[in-house]
Amino acid sequence: MSFSDSVGIVEKHFFRFAHPPGEMEFECGMRLGPLTLAYETYGRLSPDRDNAVLVLHALTGDSHAAGHYAGQQTSPGWWETMIGPGKALDTSTYFIICSNVLGGCMGSTGPSSIDPATGRPFALSFPLVTIGDMVQAQKHLIDHLGIERLLAVIGGSMGGMQVLEWSVRFPHKVRSAIPIASATRHSAMAIAFNEVARQAIISDPNWRQGNYYEHQPPTHGQAVARMIGHVTYLSDEALRKKFDRSPKERGAPPQSFQTDFQVGSYLRHQGEKFVHRFDANSLLYLTKAADHFSLASRYGEGSLAKAFSWASCRFLVLSFSSDWLYPTSQSREMVKAMKKSSLEVNFCEIQTDYGHDSFLVHNPRQAELVAGFLDKVRRLNERAE
Amino acid sequence: MSFSDSVGIVEKHFFRFAHPPGEMEFECGMRLGPLTLAYETYGRLSPDRDNAVLVLHALTGDSHAAGHYAGQQTSPGWWETMIGPGKALDTSTYFIICSNVLGGCMGSTGPSSIDPATGRPFALSFPLVTIGDMVQAQKHLIDHLGIERLLAVIGGSMGGMQVLEWSVRFPHKVRSAIPIASATRHSAMAIAFNEVARQAIISDPNWRQGNYYEHQPPTHGQAVARMIGHVTYLSDEALRKKFDRSPKERGAPPQSFQTDFQVGSYLRHQGEKFVHRFDANSLLYLTKAADHFSLASRYGEGSLAKAFSWASCRFLVLSFSSDWLYPTSQSREMVKAMKKSSLEVNFCEIQTDYGHDSFLVHNPRQAELVAGFLDKVRRLNERAE
Repeated sequence: MSFSDSVGIVEKHFFRFAHPPGEMEFECGMRLGPLTLAYETYGRLSPDRDNAVLVLHALTGDSHAAGHYAGQQTSPGWWETMIGPGKALDTSTYFIICSNVLGGCMGSTGPSSIDPATGRPFALSFPLVTIGDMVQAQKHLIDHLGIERLLAVIGGSMGGMQVLEWSVRFPHKVRSAIPIASATRHSAMAIAFNEVARQAIISDPNWRQGNYYEHQPPTHGQAVARMIGHVTYLSDEALRKKFDRSPKERGAPPQSFQTDFQVGSYLRHQGEKFVHRFDANSLLYLTKAADHFSLASRYGEGSLAKAFSWASCRFLVLSFSSDWLYPTSQSREMVKAMKKSSLEVNFCEIQTDYGHDSFLVHNPRQAELVAGFLDKVRRLNERAE
Repeated sequence: MSFSDSVGIVEKHFFRFAHPPGEMEFECGMRLGPLTLAYETYGRLSPDRDNAVLVLHALTGDSHAAGHYAGQQTSPGWWETMIGPGKALDTSTYFIICSNVLGGCMGSTGPSSIDPATGRPFALSFPLVTIGDMVQAQKHLIDHLGIERLLAVIGGSMGGMQVLEWSVRFPHKVRSAIPIASATRHSAMAIAFNEVARQAIISDPNWRQGNYYEHQPPTHGQAVARMIGHVTYLSDEALRKKFDRSPKERGAPPQSFQTDFQVGSYLRHQGEKFVHRFDANSLLYLTKAADHFSLASRYGEGSLAKAFSWASCRFLVLSFSSDWLYPTSQSREMVKAMKKSSLEVNFCEIQTDYGHDSFLVHNPRQAELVAGFLDKVRRLNERAE
């Protein structure tokens, strides 16, 4: 498996869609339309249209999973290590689709989009989008691309939640599903950290009840929110390896309130970078969607096994040993429920020390497991036809 | 052991002190004085002055560890469950002293105190206080109270750091030391969360480089800082038991950005309460002091065993199974180093699901272990004399 090959130059597409009469109904009951989803594709759809893999991104991700835009060699995709010729999601074999989520701010309709009814950004009048709504919108995109059935849906973290939603909401549309570093429901700890991140934004005076688009945005609260998230995505080991106090700092009395630990300036940099690329209201909407996700409640009347009884695809479930935000215990719990519903499941906890973000970094074991699983699904598929 | 008895009405004392010529030298090299320490005492000092136990508080604690002030029955001490007649720190046997830390804002000199030189609050001109400085100031208090040798020093979290500092800085002044839920050095994760908390404050426009005393204080940043701290002090289990989503919330689509999870309103309440009782600059100074604490670097040239070779007292080290901020592994590490230095150590990891805050809540096992250990130390003491 090679990691040096890129898919090369790619292009962002925009899909405008709506149910008749021009609107999609959100789970909260609100209707809105037409809507836009930004997406990218890599590789070629086979004549039988049976090699499509849908990649679903995490909280602040976007549709740009691989390659680079014309004239912008410096901006690689967020899953460059996984997507490309000869890689785990092999673009010489598979047709890869990556769609930005509804409610986001990277080209898809979200709170920062213009409400045609008012000519101004939706802000808080945007419907309170759910993981189900995101998947419903993706279903329109897949229909639009003429794909009857996806070979696989794959994603990490909130992307994994969309994978799970796909598997039970549209069982006949997916042959296999790969939730990575994910959960069927957030832990109380994960919700608490998201809640603090949201409080950081909405208590920033510049937030103005979400109507900051013509003013100074709530950069202070948003940067803090990002820093909180960032720490929870890493493990102690990862932080230590990256930013252990330098010898000069050890035991020396502190001299100023400048961030004298490297970890501090790194976090501040993450926070500052984030405010330039992401919309604060989108962060509120997307964290809320993830916090409210509960597969057992939505599809199983409280029982996870019952929820998975709606599914029929094969699963590959991956977790990471150092991920304390989406711990392996949560993956084991979903695997148990899948087995209880007689589903075919492969499960692996990958040993890493990079925390929750492990799925985003170069990880040969993850690549190998995904490649092998996809290959098996593809061959079973060919045999069946 | 009874937990119903209180020490009754107590009074806050203020000790003004200074080295000649009226100043104390801080580890950073700055000199300041006279300084004040707020403290309280419970029980009576024995004629031999050999029954004194110094209680050291955590980050945002104060000198009010037990009892209540005249006319204020509603404000019990923060370690009411541990201090009183018949309790672990039995006031019919021991003379308990609890001192507020230097750099704090509960009656001791800190950044919000008036600088006599300018007639205005010190703010950032206050010296960057260390755990060593706090202990140096407490040593002045103990001398002032006429105590030659403490029977024990005891404290949790940052209080435990002061306990460790006492044991190696003033070995002849302590017969025993009880660090609880503590560490000889913060993990990278603990520093990272503190760093985000500090960033929340210093990036609040109202912080004004620390000069907010005559203006609106940085309540937004400070409340967020407290919320971050609060989540790290609890375990997932504790959060879940306290604030699991109510059935009505499970799987139901979110309706608004009001904090629809109970955990959210609880955290917001914690943040709001905190800004009224604590000074933002003190939080910056005290978290910095804890982050810079490194026993091995300060006293052992990088070796923890070498650092403990300065100590001579008996130790009781306690940790809690659900404490992920000061994990048991850190306590085990210090116990190992103590043993390597031939010190007498008892160690216990107490099974709890309340996270780091376990040392603050009613815990019969902690009370029992502390009571038994103190009794042994006291009897050994009597035999030796």
